[in-house]
Amino acid sequence: MNCADFCARLDEELRTDAYADLDASPNGLQVGPAEREVEHVAFAVDAARATADAAVDADADLLVTHHGYVFGSVERVTGRLYERLRPHYEHEMGLYVSHLPLDGHQELGNAAGLADLLDLTDREPFGEMGPEYIGQRGTAADPFDRDELVSLLDAELDTGDQDVQLLDFGPEVIEDVAIVTGSGVDWLDEAVDAGADLLLTGEGKQQVYHDAREAGINVALAGHYATETFGVAALADLAEEWGLTTTVVSHPTCL
Amino acid sequence: MNCADFCARLDEELRTDAYADLDASPNGLQVGPAEREVEHVAFAVDAARATADAAVDADADLLVTHHGYVFGSVERVTGRLYERLRPHYEHEMGLYVSHLPLDGHQELGNAAGLADLLDLTDREPFGEMGPEYIGQRGTAADPFDRDELVSLLDAELDTGDQDVQLLDFGPEVIEDVAIVTGSGVDWLDEAVDAGADLLLTGEGKQQVYHDAREAGINVALAGHYATETFGVAALADLAEEWGLTTTVVSHPTCL
Amino acid sequence: MNCADFCARLDEELRTDAYADLDASPNGLQVGPAEREVEHVAFAVDAARATADAAVDADADLLVTHHGYVFGSVERVTGRLYERLRPHYEHEMGLYVSHLPLDGHQELGNAAGLADLLDLTDREPFGEMGPEYIGQRGTAADPFDRDELVSLLDAELDTGDQDVQLLDFGPEVIEDVAIVTGSGVDWLDEAVDAGADLLLTGEGKQQVYHDAREAGINVALAGHYATETFGVAALADLAEEWGLTTTVVSHPTCL
Amino acid sequence: MNCADFCARLDEELRTDAYADLDASPNGLQVGPAEREVEHVAFAVDAARATADAAVDADADLLVTHHGYVFGSVERVTGRLYERLRPHYEHEMGLYVSHLPLDGHQELGNAAGLADLLDLTDREPFGEMGPEYIGQRGTAADPFDRDELVSLLDAELDTGDQDVQLLDFGPEVIEDVAIVTGSGVDWLDEAVDAGADLLLTGEGKQQVYHDAREAGINVALAGHYATETFGVAALADLAEEWGLTTTVVSHPTCL
Amino acid sequence: MNCADFCARLDEELRTDAYADLDASPNGLQVGPAEREVEHVAFAVDAARATADAAVDADADLLVTHHGYVFGSVERVTGRLYERLRPHYEHEMGLYVSHLPLDGHQELGNAAGLADLLDLTDREPFGEMGPEYIGQRGTAADPFDRDELVSLLDAELDTGDQDVQLLDFGPEVIEDVAIVTGSGVDWLDEAVDAGADLLLTGEGKQQVYHDAREAGINVALAGHYATETFGVAALADLAEEWGLTTTVVSHPTCL
Amino acid sequence: MNCADFCARLDEELRTDAYADLDASPNGLQVGPAEREVEHVAFAVDAARATADAAVDADADLLVTHHGYVFGSVERVTGRLYERLRPHYEHEMGLYVSHLPLDGHQELGNAAGLADLLDLTDREPFGEMGPEYIGQRGTAADPFDRDELVSLLDAELDTGDQDVQLLDFGPEVIEDVAIVTGSGVDWLDEAVDAGADLLLTGEGKQQVYHDAREAGINVALAGHYATETFGVAALADLAEEWGLTTTVVSHPTCL
Repeated sequence: MNCADFCARLDEELRTDAYADLDASPNGLQVGPAEREVEHVAFAVDAARATADAAVDADADLLVTHHGYVFGSVERVTGRLYERLRPHYEHEMGLYVSHLPLDGHQELGNAAGLADLLDLTDREPFGEMGPEYIGQRGTAADPFDRDELVSLLDAELDTGDQDVQLLDFGPEVIEDVAIVTGSGVDWLDEAVDAGADLLLTGEGKQQVYHDAREAGINVALAGHYATETFGVAALADLAEEWGLTTTVVSHPTCL
Repeated sequence: MNCADFCARLDEELRTDAYADLDASPNGLQVGPAEREVEHVAFAVDAARATADAAVDADADLLVTHHGYVFGSVERVTGRLYERLRPHYEHEMGLYVSHLPLDGHQELGNAAGLADLLDLTDREPFGEMGPEYIGQRGTAADPFDRDELVSLLDAELDTGDQDVQLLDFGPEVIEDVAIVTGSGVDWLDEAVDAGADLLLTGEGKQQVYHDAREAGINVALAGHYATETFGVAALADLAEEWGLTTTVVSHPTCL
Repeated sequence: MNCADFCARLDEELRTDAYADLDASPNGLQVGPAEREVEHVAFAVDAARATADAAVDADADLLVTHHGYVFGSVERVTGRLYERLRPHYEHEMGLYVSHLPLDGHQELGNAAGLADLLDLTDREPFGEMGPEYIGQRGTAADPFDRDELVSLLDAELDTGDQDVQLLDFGPEVIEDVAIVTGSGVDWLDEAVDAGADLLLTGEGKQQVYHDAREAGINVALAGHYATETFGVAALADLAEEWGLTTTVVSHPTCL
Repeated sequence: MNCADFCARLDEELRTDAYADLDASPNGLQVGPAEREVEHVAFAVDAARATADAAVDADADLLVTHHGYVFGSVERVTGRLYERLRPHYEHEMGLYVSHLPLDGHQELGNAAGLADLLDLTDREPFGEMGPEYIGQRGTAADPFDRDELVSLLDAELDTGDQDVQLLDFGPEVIEDVAIVTGSGVDWLDEAVDAGADLLLTGEGKQQVYHDAREAGINVALAGHYATETFGVAALADLAEEWGLTTTVVSHPTCL
Repeated sequence: MNCADFCARLDEELRTDAYADLDASPNGLQVGPAEREVEHVAFAVDAARATADAAVDADADLLVTHHGYVFGSVERVTGRLYERLRPHYEHEMGLYVSHLPLDGHQELGNAAGLADLLDLTDREPFGEMGPEYIGQRGTAADPFDRDELVSLLDAELDTGDQDVQLLDFGPEVIEDVAIVTGSGVDWLDEAVDAGADLLLTGEGKQQVYHDAREAGINVALAGHYATETFGVAALADLAEEWGLTTTVVSHPTCL
Repeated sequence: MNCADFCARLDEELRTDAYADLDASPNGLQVGPAEREVEHVAFAVDAARATADAAVDADADLLVTHHGYVFGSVERVTGRLYERLRPHYEHEMGLYVSHLPLDGHQELGNAAGLADLLDLTDREPFGEMGPEYIGQRGTAADPFDRDELVSLLDAELDTGDQDVQLLDFGPEVIEDVAIVTGSGVDWLDEAVDAGADLLLTGEGKQQVYHDAREAGINVALAGHYATETFGVAALADLAEEWGLTTTVVSHPTCL
């Protein structure tokens, strides 16, 4: 498939344009030439030297990631960025990035993947970002005991050597779960307003402790990486359906 | 001591004005009347209902914290903020806040306290923030074995039920340590440029993993709370010297 | 009635959201807890210590004002603001504010109330503020002699010890009147373009003198307070209809 | 004298450049050609058709005012502005403007003139505007009875048919007076902090009433025009000293 | 015809409002009184002393230009601007300006006029400027030999003593032509994306050389003035249709 | 020499830091690794595929240019930028850029080089850009006849197939010359105020014609490229002095 066509199909599926003014990440093709054939696509959570090298080892023509090399913009191609682009030049491998569009996709996205894992029903978009959403919420088919839920996450997610951390300020039985993957504690109040028993996200920030404590809501911090493997895996499945060869690169950060 | 006088002495010691345009936190007296007598001052890392209630229980006239109720500014006094101010009104207790000025103070500050713990020498300001600094770096009197350093931090810091997390991408023997407490991974490149073997900070963020890996530097994540107990403790000592009664409120967040 | 429900009904009636990006005043509930019962509501033009104390004396559960404590935002709750919030904390009394939404409401608003007083017909929204309006214009059922109109305003408005001031640069017979209450001289050119014989507003500013003189239009300055008692009085009537007990606090500023 | 030279001398005396980034008024020569001879200069508080016509009648070559035609900037020369420039073109008469530099001049300025009238001693700059000042404060040689002070202002100032308005919330005996002429109520808190018994200014704004009431300070509103005749009169004296013929145009606005 | 009515008809035809937020030029009546009779209208590319004097010589009541006196806004009417307005005051002659609206008009505009000259078919708006367009593209009825096209432009345009400059980096046979008159090289990439063989514009900028060379597209620089005579000429025809007397002032700048 | 050291020496000589907030061009090392040895340095006016390929052909380790690949910043490394960086990756060749610092250097800079060519004396910095300058002015040792000056420029500059264009609105004898190379017509008024007989620059813009005509000053447009070859040539000489091998790449753009 032509690279430009592949990117266009992803952009359409992920609604990349709808997030253009909301996301600091330049989404879509971020590195490389658009006009080349793509047969083998690698997928990873982070664009970095380690994942690009793994993609090269797998003989990929294109790397697709959730986090790209550029957030905002850059003035120079020197230092770390210069070295990161080297395997792309040496192997004519492009980089396609989908940050918030992939967080927010209600079927393929990171939050949707977590909701699948927890078997949530009655799902709705959650995590307002301007006119769009970057998460999802839903109701447990069978309410979880709080500790059981943490154990499930610990067992199923790629958290490396870190445990899921629970701020246990809400009810012991969890029925309604609000999810924003990655760094999502800023949506705590939206979770409270939505009546959630638990906000499930990746990284914490210091202020969420007392905010959650005073609001009486549980917060589970399951790791930025571990909560964001779902989206790229779903895109890999999609690419397979489109007739491409795929490789999913796993490189947990334990963060 | 008159509250306004106490605040003015702290402002002078901490150089509050120098950080006025750099810090989102409104530092200095953030809540309450300036014109009252202060005899008993409570100190805590975070301003929150839990710490304010503890200060009230200790019969404090003023609460001094590193993190206040307001970052940036607020449009309303409703919801969580309304409830947080309640003990202040009920007990005529003010709130004095020192955020970046307390991080950056080269003797009393949070980074300086950690450097004391590690017995660092040849100390210099680290962690540029405009024309000021919010951290400190120095050299270990006796170089640390990397694991030994982590064990020391685990043993001495108030990390609650969380372990110190090490991104072990640098040398095994640690001589030069760069410190920005709290959320300091954005200073990774400054640590690399300064030739540090380890960046010691509190919270992580996802991107620091690959940045540190490619730069070949160690990063220790010892917790936002745990790395920021030093400054308020030092202020409590100072207040004692000034003849005031003090209480230090401990409330680890494990974040 | 639950306070949150009462606020929501007011917001809907006043179209608070439509003015959110136009108004420096944080409208809606500005102080206090949303979840409490409200039986007795006090109404005043200005939120201030005097009016809050009067509301407390009347045993009100909520104070509704046109001008709140906060314009823009605040960084601290100290000094005058700290003292202003004191009666709210001591008596669990909230503050609901409606600034431009109440100026612009075409039936309940301040300009509409003045238009009622002058018995204007063929009314239209006046005083453009982005896509909304904050005033009203209309035609006198019986044209006024200019001095007669001033006398009527002096007699009927709560101007305290101040007289209505007339800049008599237009016709002696007044048929078409444009109204922006409070501080409205910036809408002089819109009044001229609309063919008004008189711009009726509250406060003056120096530049309006020569602008009006050269444009050949009359301007009546009837006082900021005196022109803005109508809106809160109309809201009090509305609250009565909704089954609440009400008190209207009068405190003319003579400005 | 060459017009450019005259303007340069005024700019130097008034420190026009020091206010360049603080003042919305384009100060200095605002209309007309710089290269012409100036023999007769007219002075007025406001640039307007009335004062420009009066200057033409006096056969002036240049009009000097405190308020100019432009605040901020203009996109078009149409309507009122087109008509205002007409006498300048028909009579080759320029316009020199000095707004904040003339307010703040500590000998020639508007506040200084009022301080002279009140015979204040121990004068200091007052009314911070970035790094500059736009007012003055001082102590009454003989403390005033409050009503006596108002009577003096009513008698000496060109208030037209309006009386000086007093917000009598401070002490009855006035010793320390803070002055910002024109529209100066925004400096109320600075007056309180400076220990003033009275803030003397021109125009009021609604919010000053309760602010002054709660702060326990008197405010005298003596009119925007009436408080700003001093500066241009002092410049006229200066121009006389420089050998020019002068006319001072009086046109009170009663605002 | 009343001047205000004439301006309103032009504004409607040119869709002046649609470009209000896109154009630094204050379009519409830029100088003079709206309320006067207009019988004779002069048209020129540039508003300047030369063209205004020519319009005065022709006894015009109004001058209509593509470039006005003001771009952005002005703080003063001194120096060159003061002198430029002089003939307008002396002869009561207004100035109507249409910048981007006249570039982009798909029948009367500058690009449309060039497209007529080249007899292009299948025309479409070109030159995106926010939601509007400021140019046009189309296909040559008979493909041009590249040198022949340059000769045609040299022969038909008012380039003064300057030749059309060709950056000959594209095909020798020109079929698809993209046009943005004046200073249009910033639309090079849009021309490439549209598959144009040639971008035809007025002025060049240094960077277009290598950009065009690497993109493999021809660029013809035919002069800012020379490419922008079409729009005002078309407006003159329109004014004739409306019953007015017209004069077209030619004053090539050779730029 | 180490690349980082070479860049640091250039930065010091050119005062790169002083222009950091004035220049849209990211000056200094813009592409490539800082830590490598540099023996052979190529110099060109423009960074582009043509000049980078020429530098590669000359076996250069580093390319130094006046115009870089990035102005402002970039979000992606795709399309033209991706292709431009290719020779840098394939040959490990960095890019050092000096834009305004090289325009403004009073000995080595572009304007200084032109002033040398014209043998100007009494030179002073010209072309204000914030607190810095980007040009130079001086007096002809022997006044030039205007046509003779143009002939000299045509003969000595690398204008390709384009002639120097003269806007002959000033005196026929040229004594004082103001120079801003490249695109410098925005400094016309500064040239007039400085009493220059001629503004010498590279590219024109439409508005300079009437501005120069009304100001009575000559403007010579000698080409953006042709006026900016001096700075990089002077840097090449400097690099030779520092012991490096150099190549100067000539690629006139005729713009």
